[in-house]
Amino acid sequence: MTDTRRELKLGAFLYPTGHHVAAWRHPDAQADAGSNFAHYVALAQAAEAAKFDLIFMADGVGTRGTDIEALSRTAIRYVAQFEPITLLSALSAVTSNIGFVATASTSYNEPYHIARKFASLDHISGGRAGWNLVTSSSEHEAHNFGRDEHYAHAERYERAEEFADVVRGLWDTWEEDAFPRDKESGIYFDPDKQHILNHKGKYFKVRGPLNVARAPQGHPVLVQAGSSEPGKELAARTADVVFTAHQTTEDARAFYADLKGRLAKYGRDRDDLKVMPGIFPVVGRTEQEAQDKFQQIQDLIHPAVGLSMLAGMAGPIDLSQYPLDGPVPELPETNSSKSRQKLLLDLARRENLTIRDLYLRIAGARGHYQVVGTPVQIADKMEEWFTTGAADGFNIMPPHLPVGLYDFIEHVLPELRRRGLFRSDYEGRTLRENLGLGVPRHPARAQIAAE
Amino acid sequence: MTDTRRELKLGAFLYPTGHHVAAWRHPDAQADAGSNFAHYVALAQAAEAAKFDLIFMADGVGTRGTDIEALSRTAIRYVAQFEPITLLSALSAVTSNIGFVATASTSYNEPYHIARKFASLDHISGGRAGWNLVTSSSEHEAHNFGRDEHYAHAERYERAEEFADVVRGLWDTWEEDAFPRDKESGIYFDPDKQHILNHKGKYFKVRGPLNVARAPQGHPVLVQAGSSEPGKELAARTADVVFTAHQTTEDARAFYADLKGRLAKYGRDRDDLKVMPGIFPVVGRTEQEAQDKFQQIQDLIHPAVGLSMLAGMAGPIDLSQYPLDGPVPELPETNSSKSRQKLLLDLARRENLTIRDLYLRIAGARGHYQVVGTPVQIADKMEEWFTTGAADGFNIMPPHLPVGLYDFIEHVLPELRRRGLFRSDYEGRTLRENLGLGVPRHPARAQIAAE
Repeated sequence: MTDTRRELKLGAFLYPTGHHVAAWRHPDAQADAGSNFAHYVALAQAAEAAKFDLIFMADGVGTRGTDIEALSRTAIRYVAQFEPITLLSALSAVTSNIGFVATASTSYNEPYHIARKFASLDHISGGRAGWNLVTSSSEHEAHNFGRDEHYAHAERYERAEEFADVVRGLWDTWEEDAFPRDKESGIYFDPDKQHILNHKGKYFKVRGPLNVARAPQGHPVLVQAGSSEPGKELAARTADVVFTAHQTTEDARAFYADLKGRLAKYGRDRDDLKVMPGIFPVVGRTEQEAQDKFQQIQDLIHPAVGLSMLAGMAGPIDLSQYPLDGPVPELPETNSSKSRQKLLLDLARRENLTIRDLYLRIAGARGHYQVVGTPVQIADKMEEWFTTGAADGFNIMPPHLPVGLYDFIEHVLPELRRRGLFRSDYEGRTLRENLGLGVPRHPARAQIAAE
Repeated sequence: MTDTRRELKLGAFLYPTGHHVAAWRHPDAQADAGSNFAHYVALAQAAEAAKFDLIFMADGVGTRGTDIEALSRTAIRYVAQFEPITLLSALSAVTSNIGFVATASTSYNEPYHIARKFASLDHISGGRAGWNLVTSSSEHEAHNFGRDEHYAHAERYERAEEFADVVRGLWDTWEEDAFPRDKESGIYFDPDKQHILNHKGKYFKVRGPLNVARAPQGHPVLVQAGSSEPGKELAARTADVVFTAHQTTEDARAFYADLKGRLAKYGRDRDDLKVMPGIFPVVGRTEQEAQDKFQQIQDLIHPAVGLSMLAGMAGPIDLSQYPLDGPVPELPETNSSKSRQKLLLDLARRENLTIRDLYLRIAGARGHYQVVGTPVQIADKMEEWFTTGAADGFNIMPPHLPVGLYDFIEHVLPELRRRGLFRSDYEGRTLRENLGLGVPRHPARAQIAAE
């Protein structure tokens, strides 16, 4: 906590069998990872021994897609895996320092449940919980919650804004010292230190109080990933960490500057928000070995899976009418992730890619930054992003699991440490302490301090 | 699993500081239990060492009541404690055989989330999950979910019926062997063994598929507590375990016979459903010591807390207009728990109790069966209920925690074992195995077996 050097923050971003679309078919992959708890225990304990800041779990409240030919060949589109909060809560019991970030949608949840579960996880883990706030961009999720279509983009973000405020308001139900629990006088809590939210908004009406004491971290760490205009504003106002996707250093740098530049108007410092893009590292002792490893897993992609993944990420849109080896067509405006669609189109245009080229290009990193090379080459790129204002850290997306994570730990981390870029031990016990983030004081207390 | 003797099934029913309304004030109680994870680890490991079938967690998605004078003096009305699914998931990681039953409301949840979380917990725990299906009977919960009033009794049960069917349908998304995960052929799941629910009902529209593989137990254990007419029908049709409250052996026996008698019409055997009433044991080496222990904790009840608890359980109703030492008045029909109201009125009339008498009578067991006595006396009552058709087992409600649970384990369990009424080791690894319940086969498989 007294370490003043600036160091990388690292998350282990774990799809069950790994990040690559064909990960589960790799000989080293744990194919049943989606229902194998021991697999995650091993990963979490390895990541903690390596001093990662956090484990990051993506999520979808529904399988993404209905193309059974492609789906039946994939393990990544939320076909069958653990629900992240239950999984991370269990993992917190067998670890002591690493943080846990679970994704939960603001589109198909109630803020009271979300506030409660993350506050609960924060207590259970001793201050290691984070919530990755997302809006659901898949109509397949809508179909599991009584709706025929998912919310339009603008409505999703409006709802997310209000949702975030309700959750943060519920987290401020109790002041830090609201519970004297004085057996003698019989006073369990101090009524003056309980604050009823009484929220009445456009989307939600929530009275409170939250029935969990104030979280050890004040608020669990708030993570966001939206890169659209409303997404960036929401992040600048409320997020502690931004998870993001960029293909080039230049794009990452521009995004970083843009986002950090928005903080001041919300009274926040540049260091109050950490930008942690995804990176997909394929590690080899030589560049050739890394390329061979990458090719080995690329060769496992079934064309139906590649095309379906691209169609899902770019729209969703039906691409079956276009020749696989022809150019990527113009795409209709999406109501899903606009930033992801733009990123894909930019890439295709920049490098003049066919549809097949494009799905092969994104099959691994799926929109994130891909580095295939030696530990030195990977560390070079990470250092470049870190030192030139493109990232405060990274979410590491191992191609396949568990070995992809072990490769990174064994080969890249020592190189980063040699350069003084990554810790050798945790600075603290809570996720905020390790990320170098302050603990939000209760508004009633902050006011007293300011008076 | 090959044990053919009929033995008691036991649950440890754990409010944070204990079941008694003044539990937290007891010198031995862990007053900060509601946010002390280590407290629960110790309890779960002790209950597992003692071979309890399960840990049972009640729940409320909101604090029950707004009477701040009473609330600020109590730790039991969901004022501040862990959310049960996150808590039990974490506990499952530090135990190996004991089951975990979490309460979740059908009134203020979505069936997709509930199906997913319990299936996930079942995988994480290796087949030890149970869902206590309840309807929310508190308007304070409604206020946290956009509603001004809670659902009427009949509507709650209608919704609960449909909710249960959707959850069970989602649990049947995948057949047992739906995931070949064949790396060579690239087939991750067999499309013929995925079953899309496509539910469209009065309250819910849920397409599916559930994105968690079939649970190790087939279905997590389904627990219910409703004792009203629709509650009993729902239980007879769907429940594996019924948790219930009775003040007398006769009432318990009548309920047991009634419920078991309803099973046949749903094609179920009497042993397919286990009846496990609550019991509040105060254990002493002598009867006098037990009475003294009980009096010690009774003396800790603040009148505001006693009256408020009674008013909440009996209605909710405002009792402040009636003299504390006068008779219990007639009560208006409740839209909360009808069975609980009836139980309280019957007790007051039967024993001619004043309002104060009544709250003192229910402050410990809160509607459940109370036994204050020696290990032999407590075992006698349990044996009587067990052998005369009033119970298949019990949910043990220790007066205060952790010591109340340790007292039961140390003093009463040996007596039950001497009588051959309780196991010395687990029969199996899953909750169903230990409860002696079958594993539901997937309907598609059951059909093949029947053809």
